[in-house]
Amino acid sequence: MQKHNFSAGPAILPANVLEQAAHAAVDFNGMGLSIMEISHRSKEFEAVVAEAQQLVRQLSGAGEEYAVLFLSGGASTQFFMAPMNLLDESQTACYVDSGSWAAKAIKEAKLFGNVEVLASSKESNYTYIPKGYTVPTYAKYLHLTSNNTIFGTQLHEWPDTEVPIVSDMSSDMFSRPLEIERFGLIYAGAQKNLGPAGVTLVIVRKDMLGKVSRKLPSMLDYRNHIDNDSMYNTPPVFPIYVLMLTLRWIVAQGGLEAMSVHNAQKAQLIYDEIDANPCFRGTVAEEDRSLMNACFVPVNADHEVHFLEACKAAGIVGIKGHRSVGGFRASIYNAMPKTSVQVLVDVMRDFAQKHG
Amino acid sequence: MQKHNFSAGPAILPANVLEQAAHAAVDFNGMGLSIMEISHRSKEFEAVVAEAQQLVRQLSGAGEEYAVLFLSGGASTQFFMAPMNLLDESQTACYVDSGSWAAKAIKEAKLFGNVEVLASSKESNYTYIPKGYTVPTYAKYLHLTSNNTIFGTQLHEWPDTEVPIVSDMSSDMFSRPLEIERFGLIYAGAQKNLGPAGVTLVIVRKDMLGKVSRKLPSMLDYRNHIDNDSMYNTPPVFPIYVLMLTLRWIVAQGGLEAMSVHNAQKAQLIYDEIDANPCFRGTVAEEDRSLMNACFVPVNADHEVHFLEACKAAGIVGIKGHRSVGGFRASIYNAMPKTSVQVLVDVMRDFAQKHG
Repeated sequence: MQKHNFSAGPAILPANVLEQAAHAAVDFNGMGLSIMEISHRSKEFEAVVAEAQQLVRQLSGAGEEYAVLFLSGGASTQFFMAPMNLLDESQTACYVDSGSWAAKAIKEAKLFGNVEVLASSKESNYTYIPKGYTVPTYAKYLHLTSNNTIFGTQLHEWPDTEVPIVSDMSSDMFSRPLEIERFGLIYAGAQKNLGPAGVTLVIVRKDMLGKVSRKLPSMLDYRNHIDNDSMYNTPPVFPIYVLMLTLRWIVAQGGLEAMSVHNAQKAQLIYDEIDANPCFRGTVAEEDRSLMNACFVPVNADHEVHFLEACKAAGIVGIKGHRSVGGFRASIYNAMPKTSVQVLVDVMRDFAQKHG
Repeated sequence: MQKHNFSAGPAILPANVLEQAAHAAVDFNGMGLSIMEISHRSKEFEAVVAEAQQLVRQLSGAGEEYAVLFLSGGASTQFFMAPMNLLDESQTACYVDSGSWAAKAIKEAKLFGNVEVLASSKESNYTYIPKGYTVPTYAKYLHLTSNNTIFGTQLHEWPDTEVPIVSDMSSDMFSRPLEIERFGLIYAGAQKNLGPAGVTLVIVRKDMLGKVSRKLPSMLDYRNHIDNDSMYNTPPVFPIYVLMLTLRWIVAQGGLEAMSVHNAQKAQLIYDEIDANPCFRGTVAEEDRSLMNACFVPVNADHEVHFLEACKAAGIVGIKGHRSVGGFRASIYNAMPKTSVQVLVDVMRDFAQKHG
């Protein structure tokens, strides 16, 4: 049976990317060797990293004033590495507390300097994106989580500020166009829209760096990774390769504009059904709904188990909601085809006819 | 043409491991999904991590007093993470400077406490393993690099000390039996004997932890990874899976005793040829020769290019020496078959007949 993969991350990847990855696992580029057993300093792998960097620049519009890095340790490592590199003890960074991951980023930043939390939606279990705050001009940066995977909210309008934005885009990177000039640093764990787990994309404006007084371990200083083109040490070779293939796929689909249209269509399909269907209701403010993660709960709590069974019978996987929200979460990242969303919508309709 | 892969790392992996990895890249365990697109918290992936941990315990003999972790960031991250977790500002750790990676570990440790370098072979370009030093009892730990990949030396006898040993075993982990009780912490980047790049094995005695006064970022505190079974954040899923397959392969070959015999036989083949062949000479002290990386140089420097051509014609790849040593380096890790070493030895003999 064909599977329809609504997992929140690690998440669905394009089928042709997976096929190419499988091929390269035994024979990369006709070398007679797996990509996993060649030197990261071979010209063949250097070409992979160079192409991945070029694709990131093409998609993001990042010019030479930005560095493009492929690091490891996930977004959780960026939670502390960003403030460690950008914020001195006596300086202030501003954060918006829009979800569990934002709260974790805030906790780590407090180890390195003053943290001002400008706004929070925690009191409502993060059902909306905080807005209307003023960013003080003395802030070194403003940290924003662009999409809250767990709660299903997404920032659709960036605040108007001269302060450089540092953004965790783990769950919506390259799902829509990007105004790169607003950002001082962007980071994204790959395992939603960009590739498999094990590599983190970082785009950093170079003039943000080298301004803190603390001594940094070599691996935690972005400048060492920049100086060595993400090869300061042995990088996560296979995850970077699959990320490069996924970026190629995004470009082949028409780039970020095309992704944006495709993702908006899928989101409309599912949200229209949530709003129309008497058995379900959405969990977040309509204006802040995520185009990546649609969270909804059953109107009748007893229906939860039955709906999960109906999904399973239709080949739908990964639809169970995060424990912080409950109910269901349909993650509909770039690689999710509209046909799979339609299967889910049909199951929801069918469920309402039987149980509504 | 069949390739004989002597790369220093990322390095040769068992063919059946690569075939299984390729299969799982498109369909893992008959789920109809790639292992790269399932949740790291799925029961299927949790079983992979549990089996990998169990295999590490079985091979290493590590009991419950030790934690087994699969982290990211390579051994280069452990260079600072180990002292950050184990050494307070006012305390002393002892290091032996046996190669470039040991020197890097020393540099990072100095950020966190007092570092005493007990011995160094740097003055001879690291052609031998320093010995005969005394380890002061006040040392919190003694750091040793078990195998020096670049220089081709290996520690064949561990110093007699009560101080817990912290060892970088990146390039000879599970290539020979291990006296686990000597060690407080072992770390190894996977990409030599254990799997692909992107995952680092850490075995740490739990009572070493929680004794420093500094505040640690969550991702840099081993205890968080222990408390979450290496799933504090999304781990490098695919590299961990391939590591698990590689550990299964080691066990299927007969475990560490069998690996040790197999590796000693391959090393003897190549070193006997180096010693007998008039065109080449070894670069390190005989008693310290590595069973993983055999370094040798041409007696006549003009022969270097010609020998590399002869190797290429025979399907031999990755044989060029590191720039710090020059000449040639045959890396003959666990997965390297004896037949490939014989091919290299035959090329060396043939070369001597033509050019000797």
